Amino acid sequence: MKKNAKDAIVKAAISLFNTNGYAGTSIRDIASLAKVNTAAIAYHFHNKPGLLEYCFTHFFEQYMSKIEEAYASIDRGAKECLKRIAADLLHFQSENNHLTSFIYREMSMDSQVVREIMSTYSLKEKYYFQQIFERGFEWNEFRPHSIPYLIIQLKSLLMMPYMNTHYMREVLYIFPNEPFFEQKYLKDIHFWIDKTLCSDIPIKKGAVIK
Amino acid sequence: MKKNAKDAIVKAAISLFNTNGYAGTSIRDIASLAKVNTAAIAYHFHNKPGLLEYCFTHFFEQYMSKIEEAYASIDRGAKECLKRIAADLLHFQSENNHLTSFIYREMSMDSQVVREIMSTYSLKEKYYFQQIFERGFEWNEFRPHSIPYLIIQLKSLLMMPYMNTHYMREVLYIFPNEPFFEQKYLKDIHFWIDKTLCSDIPIKKGAVIK
Repeated sequence: MKKNAKDAIVKAAISLFNTNGYAGTSIRDIASLAKVNTAAIAYHFHNKPGLLEYCFTHFFEQYMSKIEEAYASIDRGAKECLKRIAADLLHFQSENNHLTSFIYREMSMDSQVVREIMSTYSLKEKYYFQQIFERGFEWNEFRPHSIPYLIIQLKSLLMMPYMNTHYMREVLYIFPNEPFFEQKYLKDIHFWIDKTLCSDIPIKKGAVIK
Repeated sequence: MKKNAKDAIVKAAISLFNTNGYAGTSIRDIASLAKVNTAAIAYHFHNKPGLLEYCFTHFFEQYMSKIEEAYASIDRGAKECLKRIAADLLHFQSENNHLTSFIYREMSMDSQVVREIMSTYSLKEKYYFQQIFERGFEWNEFRPHSIPYLIIQLKSLLMMPYMNTHYMREVLYIFPNEPFFEQKYLKDIHFWIDKTLCSDIPIKKGAVIK
């Protein structure tokens, strides 16, 4: 029963935070939607910031594990590794589109919890991307380029559809939570990797032309 | 004097909405920072939603005029037109980075004002992009591709640095409001246009090879 209550609270919180924003949602709203009393929320999460922190950790633990799993296969090539990360992250975001949308919006705020998340997860994520890009340069798979600027582009392509779900639906008539979108859009990100990362690679001195 | 008070209110509102979020900002906070009394805010903007609407209109009127001005030169080529739009929008966002950051975050919410903005400005923006891409296909400048999927990518590359300014600063050590960033990043967006939009163009039947 306790496990069910906890899950119901998290589900209700994600839905309300996403629709009305964190500041626009009260513990009472969450309790009401989750059909629990406010004491149950206090028991599991202490208070509203505690619940927010739980959502962040819940999201980024899974997010980082996707990157770590894909990174384990770096020896098969930097390009293959990056393509797998793109596929796995798109799929994860698509499956958790409400949570993703709310987390990304909240990450744009300057708050204590956001600073903590950045100093753990975002720095770790940057480390992995850095490793992959450096390997790609070294192995002559990627055109040499500023790593932070590549991270911006890759992350922007991955995040955008889930940060702007209303725009996607109302203006472009695209539904980012549907498998059709995920498959089609993944091809575009892979095309970006092929065309902007893997083209115009200078021939290294001493390299043997095959 | 009245003009000064109005400007001071808008400036204070942008700063507070950006830092503490719209829901986390009160009319009193804004009055206090702008050094006016709350009656002055009521006089100029009626209430907090009125002030929010003003910020949106203020942003999107300028944003759309950049696109319209660039679109006027479409006859010089779709690629050139798109590159100019990228340059002008980056510059506009960079000059108004607090407003941009707050507007983009707020656009991810599902509210009355957001729906109104989308049904006017976002649809108009989509119309212009559609025209440019269609011309680009027709004139054999762009590889044929789904227009909504191209809009997602172009908009994501343009928006990301200004939606995630804390991440940019704290994690990547990049300052999106600096001219150095604007120049360097614009090259990346132009590279995206050259490499993913303007490559692999199929030769049209009946075309004369020059």
